[in-house]
Amino acid sequence: MATLMTDEIFHDVAYKAKDRTDLLSGIDEFLDQVTVLPPGEWDPTIRIEPPKNVPSQMKRKRPPQPNGNAPAAGELEKEEEHHAGPELQRTGRIFGGLFLDVKRKAPFYWSDIKDAFSLQCLASVLFLYCACMSPVITFGGLLGEATKGNISAIESLFGASLTGVAYSLFAGQPLTILGSTGPVLVFEKILFKFCKDYHLSYLSLRTSIGLWTAFLCLLLVATDASSLVCYITRFTEEAFAALICIIFIYEALEKLFHLGEHYPVNMHNSLDNLTLYSCQCSPPANATEQLAQLWNRTGFGSPDAVPWSSLNVSMCKLLQGDFVGSACGHHGPYIPDVLFWSIILFFTTFFLSSFLKQFKTDRYFPTKLRSTISDFAVFLTIMIMVMVDYLMGIPSPKLNVPDRFEPTSKNRGWLMDPLGGNPWWTLLLAALPALLCTILIFMDQQITAVIINRKEHKLKKGCGYHLDLLVVAVMLGVCSIMGLPWFVAATVLSISHVNSLKVESGCSAPGEQPKFLGIREQRVTGFMIFVLMGCSVFMTSVLKFIPMPVLYGVFLYMGASSLKGIQFFDRIKLFGMPAKHQPDLIYLRYVPLWKVHIFTLIQLTCLVLLWVIKASAAAVVFPMMVLALVFIRKLLDFFFTKRELSWLDDLMPESKKKTEDDKKKKAQEKMEEESRLQDEEEAALNVTYEASNLLNIPVTSISGRSYRIGIVTQSLPVEEQPGEGGLR
Amino acid sequence: MATLMTDEIFHDVAYKAKDRTDLLSGIDEFLDQVTVLPPGEWDPTIRIEPPKNVPSQMKRKRPPQPNGNAPAAGELEKEEEHHAGPELQRTGRIFGGLFLDVKRKAPFYWSDIKDAFSLQCLASVLFLYCACMSPVITFGGLLGEATKGNISAIESLFGASLTGVAYSLFAGQPLTILGSTGPVLVFEKILFKFCKDYHLSYLSLRTSIGLWTAFLCLLLVATDASSLVCYITRFTEEAFAALICIIFIYEALEKLFHLGEHYPVNMHNSLDNLTLYSCQCSPPANATEQLAQLWNRTGFGSPDAVPWSSLNVSMCKLLQGDFVGSACGHHGPYIPDVLFWSIILFFTTFFLSSFLKQFKTDRYFPTKLRSTISDFAVFLTIMIMVMVDYLMGIPSPKLNVPDRFEPTSKNRGWLMDPLGGNPWWTLLLAALPALLCTILIFMDQQITAVIINRKEHKLKKGCGYHLDLLVVAVMLGVCSIMGLPWFVAATVLSISHVNSLKVESGCSAPGEQPKFLGIREQRVTGFMIFVLMGCSVFMTSVLKFIPMPVLYGVFLYMGASSLKGIQFFDRIKLFGMPAKHQPDLIYLRYVPLWKVHIFTLIQLTCLVLLWVIKASAAAVVFPMMVLALVFIRKLLDFFFTKRELSWLDDLMPESKKKTEDDKKKKAQEKMEEESRLQDEEEAALNVTYEASNLLNIPVTSISGRSYRIGIVTQSLPVEEQPGEGGLR
Repeated sequence: MATLMTDEIFHDVAYKAKDRTDLLSGIDEFLDQVTVLPPGEWDPTIRIEPPKNVPSQMKRKRPPQPNGNAPAAGELEKEEEHHAGPELQRTGRIFGGLFLDVKRKAPFYWSDIKDAFSLQCLASVLFLYCACMSPVITFGGLLGEATKGNISAIESLFGASLTGVAYSLFAGQPLTILGSTGPVLVFEKILFKFCKDYHLSYLSLRTSIGLWTAFLCLLLVATDASSLVCYITRFTEEAFAALICIIFIYEALEKLFHLGEHYPVNMHNSLDNLTLYSCQCSPPANATEQLAQLWNRTGFGSPDAVPWSSLNVSMCKLLQGDFVGSACGHHGPYIPDVLFWSIILFFTTFFLSSFLKQFKTDRYFPTKLRSTISDFAVFLTIMIMVMVDYLMGIPSPKLNVPDRFEPTSKNRGWLMDPLGGNPWWTLLLAALPALLCTILIFMDQQITAVIINRKEHKLKKGCGYHLDLLVVAVMLGVCSIMGLPWFVAATVLSISHVNSLKVESGCSAPGEQPKFLGIREQRVTGFMIFVLMGCSVFMTSVLKFIPMPVLYGVFLYMGASSLKGIQFFDRIKLFGMPAKHQPDLIYLRYVPLWKVHIFTLIQLTCLVLLWVIKASAAAVVFPMMVLALVFIRKLLDFFFTKRELSWLDDLMPESKKKTEDDKKKKAQEKMEEESRLQDEEEAALNVTYEASNLLNIPVTSISGRSYRIGIVTQSLPVEEQPGEGGLR
Repeated sequence: MATLMTDEIFHDVAYKAKDRTDLLSGIDEFLDQVTVLPPGEWDPTIRIEPPKNVPSQMKRKRPPQPNGNAPAAGELEKEEEHHAGPELQRTGRIFGGLFLDVKRKAPFYWSDIKDAFSLQCLASVLFLYCACMSPVITFGGLLGEATKGNISAIESLFGASLTGVAYSLFAGQPLTILGSTGPVLVFEKILFKFCKDYHLSYLSLRTSIGLWTAFLCLLLVATDASSLVCYITRFTEEAFAALICIIFIYEALEKLFHLGEHYPVNMHNSLDNLTLYSCQCSPPANATEQLAQLWNRTGFGSPDAVPWSSLNVSMCKLLQGDFVGSACGHHGPYIPDVLFWSIILFFTTFFLSSFLKQFKTDRYFPTKLRSTISDFAVFLTIMIMVMVDYLMGIPSPKLNVPDRFEPTSKNRGWLMDPLGGNPWWTLLLAALPALLCTILIFMDQQITAVIINRKEHKLKKGCGYHLDLLVVAVMLGVCSIMGLPWFVAATVLSISHVNSLKVESGCSAPGEQPKFLGIREQRVTGFMIFVLMGCSVFMTSVLKFIPMPVLYGVFLYMGASSLKGIQFFDRIKLFGMPAKHQPDLIYLRYVPLWKVHIFTLIQLTCLVLLWVIKASAAAVVFPMMVLALVFIRKLLDFFFTKRELSWLDDLMPESKKKTEDDKKKKAQEKMEEESRLQDEEEAALNVTYEASNLLNIPVTSISGRSYRIGIVTQSLPVEEQPGEGGLR
């Protein structure tokens, strides 16, 4: 019967409404006030009057219950609920949190292995193996440059594999993927320079700092310090995640453009003069005594004895000859084709993997095939691109994996002495930098864990912040003793890992957004990724076919896909959107637009500041700045009401919130209704109607008066699913 | 009240439905049977019973009224209506059709100029000018090769400009864009070879053939032959349009790949040996007497006097030297970067113009700005790409426009003698090839005109097939006398022209499909395009910056966007689609799937045959094969019922048909209702309800029983817009 009424009221709303958004919110507000029984239970002869006053459509942003007490109570409840599962409660006992973590996670151990028997896990392993290899090796390479070969690619590979395997076996949240982070690299650089300046043994000092850091981290575990994580709200988490994703995208593009330096292109080629172009090696203009010695050592004796014009590029560079000719760039001959071919590989990889990923929602082919293609999207793309690159034969830069398992430097073994040749007091002094390292490790690790453990991921096996930190700390100690780099949770890789393990409703109709059911939580994918990584040393003959631009393209894809679902970006988009085109976001219903904008601006400022710090020489303090975000968020309490903050800064996902919003109102109305019924003794009219969720409604206005209204009403049959949270 | 019922029935439908498509069609079928008054007119106390038997959901493809006579009558009506406007009625008088065309079009002449005052028209002119230039010049170049410079780029440019200006001033359908077509090129090639073999004057014979063709075309105009166009049904039209679009796309890609021949890439570069690479000119291995003469003529005397190693590419080719060196390809030095840069330009152009085009439906920026960007999409893209290419400095191939207005060959002027040095009987013999040419011109011209005059373009100023043909014939005569190539309607350019002039509902909400209102019908855009083309000779300094790959990218974009809305492709897609995922297409409701597939297969076979003919040496007979399609379509009458053909082969667009389908049923039901009312004397219940159009309905099935149904009901307020055809 109420549906009948709606027709009348829709008309009313349609004539009053200024535009589509107005109309939508009008209908929405109306629907909030009507409740009807599920069909089959109602009696069509009873007539409910429509609500007497449809609220004015012009004021959609005014909260409907500006001083209601009931919702405030609801928020408090929510505030408690927010993050504060049993995982983050302080126990007050030493290692109490860790003990509870183990107790909670242990029963899932068998299912953590069993649940991995799925093709999707294989896809995830292959994807992330390819994605993890390149950063680990690049990081190793950079570290090698920074430390003059003391720690390099092979150490990085070994350390990552070791830490990764241990972590995926014992951590509280094995979905997290460990990797190398920028601040660690900067720290090692500074340390190496310090050691060189003061003639200390870098590897030994590093080991003692590492052991101190591990000890301090263990202290944090013992004191349940991880429970402080509950102060990391959506504000901090999203600013951090957004920054890391943007950096990821930026670095992918930067690496591509850096290829332009390694593979210089002659921008002023005259095609007609190609026969006259060449770039030959020639004796350097001013040969010094040093150079003469160099030539002597290589066995040529005098510069005249060197067959300059027949030297190839590497020999010419070795003998420090000059490159002369019209086909020469600054540091050698112009390199044809490679740069542009790399650009083609890069973007093709990005678009192809995005295309294959969304294949799941296409109309063609059976569902099973479609979802398999979607799962293997990135791996398939890499395979295809490797083939294409191989067939073209352009010498694009390839992944270069060390092919022998031994320390890069001959001066070191696999075990370090924390003292080495250093004076004894360095052992104590190491505690100071270790403090910095501890914050660095703690923040990087826990904030990523928070992102992975987000409510919207619907994890069923719980998290274990204390256990995570324990494993990281122990492995940090082990890596320090073995002279390997340190590894912490890597945000983008972890998000990509979780995304690759998403389980969605099976027989989804095409076009329809598949329903997200949860994550395939298990330990096997992480384990396999890092085992494969350890075996990479023996797979160089295969891995050397993978072009680097393809991997950069994968990074771009990972960065871009990790950005999805970050509310912060939705809010940034609002700046460029005329009010009438704004989507019906839940917080826009309750918080004035200008306040939303201010909130976004503050977050944006924080992000820019973080970026500046991360990009500058002060990158080591970056984790502390992330910590500072928590305090900035605390300051916001003075500018925003608690109510507004609860809408803008909350870990609950958008859709779920809307449903709860609806449910709350419904409950309230039900109560009112019930009391009314008791009064009037009309018992038959306990009516609920699961209706809301207005989407994709075409409304056209011609000549300013004629409107077509579409309204989506949703009716749920009698049996409602238990534990079936949102409507969407 | 009926809406109330729906809730019950929706449940029924939801429980019965096997999947989403089932559900949708179930709801759809149900809605067809319910009619409710517009709100405000109904009396909610009266209750209509829902239709007693909801048809089984499993048999959606069975026609609901398998032997109904009323719809058959409706179809006959439609069959008459189809194409058969007053334009195509035979008059029985000489030039009767032409006279009526002029009479009908003349009153619009002023508005044809006035209506062009819009920014969109400027966008259209700039887009199509860029798009038309390259084919005209390429065609000229090919013709120049085929006829040894008798007719070349400048003649092509002049002829196109002349014909285009005349056509857009006087034609019946000035939205058509004239251009060069493949069959004409093949014909000229054959003719030139024939003339060479029999020592006849090519230009003179060509003139007499052209004059004959013009005469025959005039005969066709006089006899109202264009009225035969009504036999070109959707079957023929779509097969032709699809073929031309595919050829367009194919040629765009082919041209790109052909660049690989002109710009060979060294696939086996060793980057380390770049210092040793060079490609120099050297004396040919076996110098013949002829070559010695050649060198003598260039002034070098003996081969030893030629400074071989310092010759550039063009000189080396002129002196027929050999290219020697590791950087040499087959016909000269390897050309670095150009090929890959061209590929990047090509695809960037395609994606950028597609992206800018769909900008209209984005959420950001004001509507006006968005639609302007969308209108100028291709031109903006070209500008951006020209800038990028200029800044990169890679010598990519550029558009090469003749810079002087004079005949390419010095042996000819601007006026031809039909006899020339040929014997007198060639004047008569020319009538035979002219017959072929006439069919060629007639078919190419009229089928394109049919596509442009499609019902779904909602043209308001009518068409004029006879007048079109008259202008083409006259200009063909003029071009023949002046020794210029012939021009007919070019399908893809014309479709792109029409698409660029689409008027859509102004303030469309983002995401919403904007409502198509009509085409900006006028003569100015066509006129301006061809005037600009004529002036191109004076703009070479600007045009030479346009890279060819960018224009190829524009062709790809035009081909791809012209494919939109071809039902044939929708039907092809059905092959790869599991039945449950098939969209609710109108013909699937009335024709069994296997018959739809057979129809598609026949059409596909025709297309492949046409493709083979077009690609083979027999391309001249292509227009006749298109004619043959009409007869094949006629044969289909034996395999399909008239009813089925009316659903599969009809010019009416999909959405409109659905509405009519609904309307028809409604009308029928109304009649039934009325008779019932007269019987029962219940006068209050004449109810109509404008409800259907089920779109974007999320339906989720969990555990096989729980369904969420969304239904979009549309209610139109009291004043319905006159002339407001479909619901969408």
